[in-house]
Amino acid sequence: MADKIVVAYSGGLDTSVMVKWLSRKYHGEIIAVCGDLGQKDELTGLEEKALKTGASKFILVDLKHEFITEYVWKALKAGALYEGAYPMACAIGRPLLAKMLTEIAEQEGAGTIAHGCTGKGNDQVRFEVGIQTLAPEIKLEAPLRTWEFKSREEEMEYAILHNIPVKAKKDSPYSIDQNLWGIAVECGVLEDPTMPPPEDAYQLTVNPKDAPAESEVISIHFDKGIPVWVNGIHFDPVTLVNELNIIGGRNGIGRMDLIENRVVGIKSREIYEAPAAVILHNAHHELEKLILDKETFRYKQDVSNKIANLIYDGLWFSPLFSSLMAFVDSTQENITGEIVLELYKGNITVLSRSSVHSLYNKELATYTSDDTFDHKASEGFIKIYGLPYKTMSLVNNKLKATV
Amino acid sequence: MADKIVVAYSGGLDTSVMVKWLSRKYHGEIIAVCGDLGQKDELTGLEEKALKTGASKFILVDLKHEFITEYVWKALKAGALYEGAYPMACAIGRPLLAKMLTEIAEQEGAGTIAHGCTGKGNDQVRFEVGIQTLAPEIKLEAPLRTWEFKSREEEMEYAILHNIPVKAKKDSPYSIDQNLWGIAVECGVLEDPTMPPPEDAYQLTVNPKDAPAESEVISIHFDKGIPVWVNGIHFDPVTLVNELNIIGGRNGIGRMDLIENRVVGIKSREIYEAPAAVILHNAHHELEKLILDKETFRYKQDVSNKIANLIYDGLWFSPLFSSLMAFVDSTQENITGEIVLELYKGNITVLSRSSVHSLYNKELATYTSDDTFDHKASEGFIKIYGLPYKTMSLVNNKLKATV
Amino acid sequence: MADKIVVAYSGGLDTSVMVKWLSRKYHGEIIAVCGDLGQKDELTGLEEKALKTGASKFILVDLKHEFITEYVWKALKAGALYEGAYPMACAIGRPLLAKMLTEIAEQEGAGTIAHGCTGKGNDQVRFEVGIQTLAPEIKLEAPLRTWEFKSREEEMEYAILHNIPVKAKKDSPYSIDQNLWGIAVECGVLEDPTMPPPEDAYQLTVNPKDAPAESEVISIHFDKGIPVWVNGIHFDPVTLVNELNIIGGRNGIGRMDLIENRVVGIKSREIYEAPAAVILHNAHHELEKLILDKETFRYKQDVSNKIANLIYDGLWFSPLFSSLMAFVDSTQENITGEIVLELYKGNITVLSRSSVHSLYNKELATYTSDDTFDHKASEGFIKIYGLPYKTMSLVNNKLKATV
Amino acid sequence: MADKIVVAYSGGLDTSVMVKWLSRKYHGEIIAVCGDLGQKDELTGLEEKALKTGASKFILVDLKHEFITEYVWKALKAGALYEGAYPMACAIGRPLLAKMLTEIAEQEGAGTIAHGCTGKGNDQVRFEVGIQTLAPEIKLEAPLRTWEFKSREEEMEYAILHNIPVKAKKDSPYSIDQNLWGIAVECGVLEDPTMPPPEDAYQLTVNPKDAPAESEVISIHFDKGIPVWVNGIHFDPVTLVNELNIIGGRNGIGRMDLIENRVVGIKSREIYEAPAAVILHNAHHELEKLILDKETFRYKQDVSNKIANLIYDGLWFSPLFSSLMAFVDSTQENITGEIVLELYKGNITVLSRSSVHSLYNKELATYTSDDTFDHKASEGFIKIYGLPYKTMSLVNNKLKATV
Repeated sequence: MADKIVVAYSGGLDTSVMVKWLSRKYHGEIIAVCGDLGQKDELTGLEEKALKTGASKFILVDLKHEFITEYVWKALKAGALYEGAYPMACAIGRPLLAKMLTEIAEQEGAGTIAHGCTGKGNDQVRFEVGIQTLAPEIKLEAPLRTWEFKSREEEMEYAILHNIPVKAKKDSPYSIDQNLWGIAVECGVLEDPTMPPPEDAYQLTVNPKDAPAESEVISIHFDKGIPVWVNGIHFDPVTLVNELNIIGGRNGIGRMDLIENRVVGIKSREIYEAPAAVILHNAHHELEKLILDKETFRYKQDVSNKIANLIYDGLWFSPLFSSLMAFVDSTQENITGEIVLELYKGNITVLSRSSVHSLYNKELATYTSDDTFDHKASEGFIKIYGLPYKTMSLVNNKLKATV
Repeated sequence: MADKIVVAYSGGLDTSVMVKWLSRKYHGEIIAVCGDLGQKDELTGLEEKALKTGASKFILVDLKHEFITEYVWKALKAGALYEGAYPMACAIGRPLLAKMLTEIAEQEGAGTIAHGCTGKGNDQVRFEVGIQTLAPEIKLEAPLRTWEFKSREEEMEYAILHNIPVKAKKDSPYSIDQNLWGIAVECGVLEDPTMPPPEDAYQLTVNPKDAPAESEVISIHFDKGIPVWVNGIHFDPVTLVNELNIIGGRNGIGRMDLIENRVVGIKSREIYEAPAAVILHNAHHELEKLILDKETFRYKQDVSNKIANLIYDGLWFSPLFSSLMAFVDSTQENITGEIVLELYKGNITVLSRSSVHSLYNKELATYTSDDTFDHKASEGFIKIYGLPYKTMSLVNNKLKATV
Repeated sequence: MADKIVVAYSGGLDTSVMVKWLSRKYHGEIIAVCGDLGQKDELTGLEEKALKTGASKFILVDLKHEFITEYVWKALKAGALYEGAYPMACAIGRPLLAKMLTEIAEQEGAGTIAHGCTGKGNDQVRFEVGIQTLAPEIKLEAPLRTWEFKSREEEMEYAILHNIPVKAKKDSPYSIDQNLWGIAVECGVLEDPTMPPPEDAYQLTVNPKDAPAESEVISIHFDKGIPVWVNGIHFDPVTLVNELNIIGGRNGIGRMDLIENRVVGIKSREIYEAPAAVILHNAHHELEKLILDKETFRYKQDVSNKIANLIYDGLWFSPLFSSLMAFVDSTQENITGEIVLELYKGNITVLSRSSVHSLYNKELATYTSDDTFDHKASEGFIKIYGLPYKTMSLVNNKLKATV
Repeated sequence: MADKIVVAYSGGLDTSVMVKWLSRKYHGEIIAVCGDLGQKDELTGLEEKALKTGASKFILVDLKHEFITEYVWKALKAGALYEGAYPMACAIGRPLLAKMLTEIAEQEGAGTIAHGCTGKGNDQVRFEVGIQTLAPEIKLEAPLRTWEFKSREEEMEYAILHNIPVKAKKDSPYSIDQNLWGIAVECGVLEDPTMPPPEDAYQLTVNPKDAPAESEVISIHFDKGIPVWVNGIHFDPVTLVNELNIIGGRNGIGRMDLIENRVVGIKSREIYEAPAAVILHNAHHELEKLILDKETFRYKQDVSNKIANLIYDGLWFSPLFSSLMAFVDSTQENITGEIVLELYKGNITVLSRSSVHSLYNKELATYTSDDTFDHKASEGFIKIYGLPYKTMSLVNNKLKATV
């Protein structure tokens, strides 16, 4: 009896051809599954299309709330910016899709999961390592790595030949991957790192030059590292991110043009837009500066880098990620307070920060007569703090003297 | 016989009063020394003023070239941004001043060095640890930590009483510390972290809102991590930094409003301007993204943080700083190439990056038919890369099954 | 009205003189407190002695169980070995004593805590930072840093003058600090790092040369990183450590002769004995090698060093320690299993390791025909793993070729 | 015209069969190459054997001196112990063999290099990544990953069929890999981690129980981190390591029984012997404790771990390894001095350490009247050092009070 196959399905050319190709190759039942992470793609009509293409069943799962609360907030609390800049969107979404696929495979009694990632990207790694970790007995299929088609044109021919409904729309030059936390844009022109991206590559944000001449002020209130209010209004997590994408986008916030190191050992050039992510990481970091003690702040910088690498590298479900998140959660206990930001043509400026846990102490910091700092303690502090270097220097000077 | 005292002298109220105070306390010869790091203060007339105040000698040393080449370039190559943002200016200048003071002390036969830092700042640490390391036998004096004056007014009275020439200028509310690499501004108003800085606190940069509506494009060419050409023109290091301060400043680049952790354990709020530093760090980092391999890039992120901490914490002359710089210098061997940036109302956008050492390889990165990447290798890669997690999962599932 | 003073009291010369000295200086009520961490000192008669010396009250607190379960087990799970070797005993005990002192101060309404640490050791830092953190309003007294006595002889004279009961015992040349987790020995002879310690400096362990010719085998069972059974017998934590001290001690296990970096910037030379600690750290580490995945194992190595530094540096109650322990605890979830060790004349040899969570998989590891590892996957793995270096090399060779 | 193939050749069953198998498969000229790293295998007769087996040429290269000076000393200076314990021998030797193979390939005009590593070990990674880095155009062959033989017996049949001379010796149960820096032993029995290794698995060291009852004292003098004299005698590097292997081996020093994480994601169990390596790492580390300042010592701990991982993982020729070695070399500038060790039945005890660069300062460290440490400075030091925690505590207490 042929195995059932769960297929990660988007309705685009690749996954449409893949469903047909798999159904012909394996004669097994195909269950097409689509997880909604806020990708804004056409989700209506997907079921009909999947069934026409050869799937025996189509399942659509709304993952938006889980995505923000169980995935995005973790990355935010961790301060996870890949290579110091990129808040990541796909990398955070893929493990949740992997989890959904394994859950549906179990529920449907399927022994195989297929995905439509190519052999040179990061997403194949994130899908497969995630699935192997959550369901080690599952068989994996990655047709795009192995099938016979050498180009998009060959896939198109196959689609036509097999009556696969493919939109006759004029091809956008851009390959776009989007969810609530951000959007990644790729296209041939972008493969030349000496050229700036064409303006129409951007989907969510206006060019800072075209943003309003009036700045916009927003306040964000965090509770234990998680944003809960914007401008004094409580939002559910999905709406909060959507709102900030709109506000940031219209002020030219959140564009990134990066050369980055992929998991598979090559450098690629990527265009990203992530207005909400950029605003929230800025505000969260600013609040941490007010609240975290120096030693924790410094140590967390390296942990942030490590966690960003783990997420990017597809290791969301690894024990190290989970243990580092225990560290992060512990640091967020006091990260409660409000940050007020001004957005203006691509700039984010902090107008105000406040927290009941603030370690900024005006009486200690001031140079006025309210000063409570013990200035004389510094002499002893410096004497001992510098002692190893003084000792070293005395030893070396003596050596020089005796030579 | 009374000891000679070398005094770090700026001609301001504190160091003027200090010279007189020391001369009365110790009856020793006072040598007032001023190092020029490009601070733009009134340097003319300083000698006369120092001698009137009680110094027997005044020495002015032009340190600008050494500052940029031996100090600033190291921090730039290291990517040293304190707490992820602040390129540091004082922190990099202080060790050079400390070195100058010890050299003059040796040359003049002085056994004591005095400085005008307060007891709650970072600079006392940088001066004293630097001096202790370079000249461990030198005695240190920090009158501002120990003297009897409790306010600026009391210092003024003392100045008038002793005929110390103090400018009758209307007091600026701002305390400003400046050198070629940046400027730090403090004042009473800034001690409230819930308030944005007043616009007139900024000295070097226009408000992005007031910057030109036309963007400005600059190209920067680096050789082994060091900027050598701007817009195709070779500049000596001091002029290069000056030029970029002007260019950046007029485009609203380089403002920072930060809560930071001081060496002495308190949080302070600081306003900085550093147009050249911000532009150069951006461009340098961008070039590294093109050239450094993934493992080196990732490791250097943590080294950058560590070096920033060492510099900020006054440990420039420590063996660890020097050993970490050996690491950094080794990573800079190939950091040669050009970055083109667009500056627009506070925004820096990369237009182009190029280098003969670029590891970005279009044939590997492309999704077109020029692709030379071995897609099938990925299957084996992921299988082994994910094996520990699969194994772990199998072990744990078996445990669950047997329970 | 004079303040009450809580004094950390051991009954030795320093703290005896200190009680009298404080009672004369402050005329306040003195509450002498002794925490029992298993130090084996004469605890009987302490109360009488304290009262005779000038204390108005004596409190003895049995902290042994709390010490092992809330302090020692944390350091063990963390793998905290200072400078890679020293399991620490004082450094782990001091924060608990600090906590006890603040609790008693609160309960007795005392506003001051005094301790008998000198000004050049680590323990003053651990006491004072601990107390400042737990009870920031408390006033601290460290008479040994400030009083008039310049030598032990002067203290003795003062003791005799004030009828302080000091044992007329022939003075041991050794200054010994002991608790359940280990013992530290100092004396004049040990201050010369070119000389080995005299044999009679060791208190708990036989010289490996004098240990039995027959080896001794022990098994230790851990549950989530904590030892619970030895040789199949369940022990309460205090007894377990005591037993291992005896077993290890008679086999010459646990001697250390170290040059170490103190918090206050000097190097010191210390002799330690810690049979139980050395055995347990060995066994625990061995179990982790069997169970932790590679990435977690590697990352935890650096965390172990950091935690060891925090403990040694007196930062037990810091937020960073607490957040890093959240990381550690998360890694210990599966550290359950058994290690069998052979002890022989100073050597510890692993005879067996086993755990239901073991990631060692014979079918994967074997070179026999049971092999289930996919050898062919390696080719793809290495191809991609090595790709950045190959790319880099191609770029550089091309550059060489074109020169 | 068929390509020439350079084959890493040892004369054992695998590489003998491989030469024949390759010569039949490719009809190209086979150049068998053996690098002498001190492996003690039968090197005489190798040429005849290689030629009989199908090679057209045999090359033996004495790499012993280069191995110690350019490879082993680097790992020693770095303090590179894999997973905290294993000094590595193969992992350090493989990159040198890879370099030799690429050099011979270039010199002989060969386009392919073949090695005899299996598909599940570390050595394939080290060979292939090394070769790809040094000679990215070279084709790689790993017949053991791809050929038809499923067992040693099938290889034997093939050998007999093709007249390959295979020693008729009674098969040792052990698979042994040896060079000057250590030996690795594997065999079926060792695959059970609950069993200790059989005594006859050890090749170089006596059981501590059988070591002499008299201890042996040795002194080792280092110059900039490199051992140059033993017991006052200058040795060339190869002889020095050989001597220490003998001395250590007869005293039961250097046995290791480890569960370790392989590059390819599995845990394996390995028996190692490395008397010289264990002695030298101990002595070197001890000297560093005397000479390195605290900050450098602490930072280098993490660098040691990272370098060990890079070496183990086959990244010897990576830029990160090279940049980290620049760091290490900088730290070794002052690591000159002498360590005296006592070896006794598996124990290494330090008897003496001395160096002109020693930062141990008796006048600072002493508790006698020679004390020059400023005890009163400690008060100021601790006040400022603990200030962040005190501030934090005040903030939190106030919050509690107001609730």
